[in-house]
Amino acid sequence: VFNRGMQPALIGIDWGSSSFRAYLMSTGGEVLDEISSGDGIGSVAAGAYPVTLKRLIGRWLDVHASLPALASGMVGSRHGWREAPYVKCPAGPQDVAQRLTTVEAGGRTVFLAPGLSTEDEAGGDVMRGEETEIFGVADAGAGLIVLPGSHSKWAKIEGGRVAAFKTFVTGELFAALRDHTIAGAFAKAAPAKTPGEAFALGVSRGAGAASGKAEVGLLGLLFGARSLPLMGALDQDDAGEYLSGLLIGAEIGEARRLYPGEEPHVAGAAVLVKRYLAAFGALGVSARDAPPRAAARGLFRIARDGGIL
Amino acid sequence: VFNRGMQPALIGIDWGSSSFRAYLMSTGGEVLDEISSGDGIGSVAAGAYPVTLKRLIGRWLDVHASLPALASGMVGSRHGWREAPYVKCPAGPQDVAQRLTTVEAGGRTVFLAPGLSTEDEAGGDVMRGEETEIFGVADAGAGLIVLPGSHSKWAKIEGGRVAAFKTFVTGELFAALRDHTIAGAFAKAAPAKTPGEAFALGVSRGAGAASGKAEVGLLGLLFGARSLPLMGALDQDDAGEYLSGLLIGAEIGEARRLYPGEEPHVAGAAVLVKRYLAAFGALGVSARDAPPRAAARGLFRIARDGGIL
Repeated sequence: VFNRGMQPALIGIDWGSSSFRAYLMSTGGEVLDEISSGDGIGSVAAGAYPVTLKRLIGRWLDVHASLPALASGMVGSRHGWREAPYVKCPAGPQDVAQRLTTVEAGGRTVFLAPGLSTEDEAGGDVMRGEETEIFGVADAGAGLIVLPGSHSKWAKIEGGRVAAFKTFVTGELFAALRDHTIAGAFAKAAPAKTPGEAFALGVSRGAGAASGKAEVGLLGLLFGARSLPLMGALDQDDAGEYLSGLLIGAEIGEARRLYPGEEPHVAGAAVLVKRYLAAFGALGVSARDAPPRAAARGLFRIARDGGIL
Repeated sequence: VFNRGMQPALIGIDWGSSSFRAYLMSTGGEVLDEISSGDGIGSVAAGAYPVTLKRLIGRWLDVHASLPALASGMVGSRHGWREAPYVKCPAGPQDVAQRLTTVEAGGRTVFLAPGLSTEDEAGGDVMRGEETEIFGVADAGAGLIVLPGSHSKWAKIEGGRVAAFKTFVTGELFAALRDHTIAGAFAKAAPAKTPGEAFALGVSRGAGAASGKAEVGLLGLLFGARSLPLMGALDQDDAGEYLSGLLIGAEIGEARRLYPGEEPHVAGAAVLVKRYLAAFGALGVSARDAPPRAAARGLFRIARDGGIL
């Protein structure tokens, strides 16, 4: 039972490869209820989307039979429920809202949001799901948004739309080096709760390599996570922090060459946001964290701009 | 039975982490016989080196009871037979020969060659085993030597000694991305026998990123092995060649900033040398392949300079 200002208006769903998160949202865009699970599309058989959705949020679907449902993320990829083709940048919530794909679940229409694509000197880039988080952060006025993670995304915002973006495989590369290479094998110690000197040294060297001014480039720096402990120039327990710093520093250095000037707004898991803010601090770059639940706000923006509320 | 010019003079051993290769060499440095196996030090228990050596080359040890034996590679690491501490650059065969460590095997002395270390802006670097190959190539007058592989080594030669060197984790990074990341998952097609257009495009972009002049840096390029096929901008079957090109191009670009001017001499497995020469060709850089059996020549040089022949 909700008060009048808290009338349910939207079921927003962020359905990625390995996770599912749904928001019951009010007419004013507040999150009234939230359900999350590990039922990413990687664990959903083709054709099993309607029954999976019923199992995960059937309670909402029954009680709020007339509410619109909007889903973003890999659920709209060719390996998901149905493909919602990429929308080219520049693109904002309105552009995405005009290109929704629809599917049916138990007689109910579910809207699938497309991802974004961009073209650049290196051929281009794609995202699917992150755009809803970005729209949510951009709504608060950010000009440059960072979503750190396996595939970190940096998005340049102009007039409320994503003007351009770039993916950096920072998190995935760190894990692959740590777990599957000799070069990164010393990085297996648990990450520091508070990034320290080894992290800051890595950040500084990684960013220097990305600037094009340092003597040693990124590929030449990575073996340092092994050679420096072997030489006694770095504590072996610090190798993981150093390697993490090299990669995050390189990401920040490369991204700031692409998108100079704007203050980065960092959104995502608290532990990652903290680590990135520490890296910005080590480089003397002003940056801030973004308010939480950006994906919910972005879904609400798309639904409102698309007139499906 | 050998003629007089072919008198056996040295048993040279290149004993790495995952392979073993031994050369029976003449007084003139020719290879008279060769034995190789997969018995790298990773498969040898502590204390089992003498018995392993007897099993692998016992025939030579019996017949040529007075020949000196010299081994290089990971066998001289702290995880090998006995540690032979790194020699600092600049270092040539004579410097290494003065720092041999000895072990005993069935009443016979075996000499272990140390690896090299170098210091640079990024803290420094180490090698162990590659120095014998490098000495072998340098013997023929090369000024800049490239040993492509999991951990590619570039060595600057001055006056027959290694003045400086740098490791690039190119091969290991390629395999880790291909086998253990979503970003590199499209790269699973078998590599092309003759590197083609997708490889050359990757080389050009990777080298451009390393130059510090291109818009997109190396970390920002890697996701292209996934995003470009998803956008239809690259054939999915070409993703592996493209990714291989990005990494090799970045290696060459970074290394040539460190060691400009000299013509690179590339030594190693034929398929890798061919791929690197194709990359140099795509960049318009003159390079050449080095004569085979460089490790045997390097071992001979160390033994001769150390007076153990």
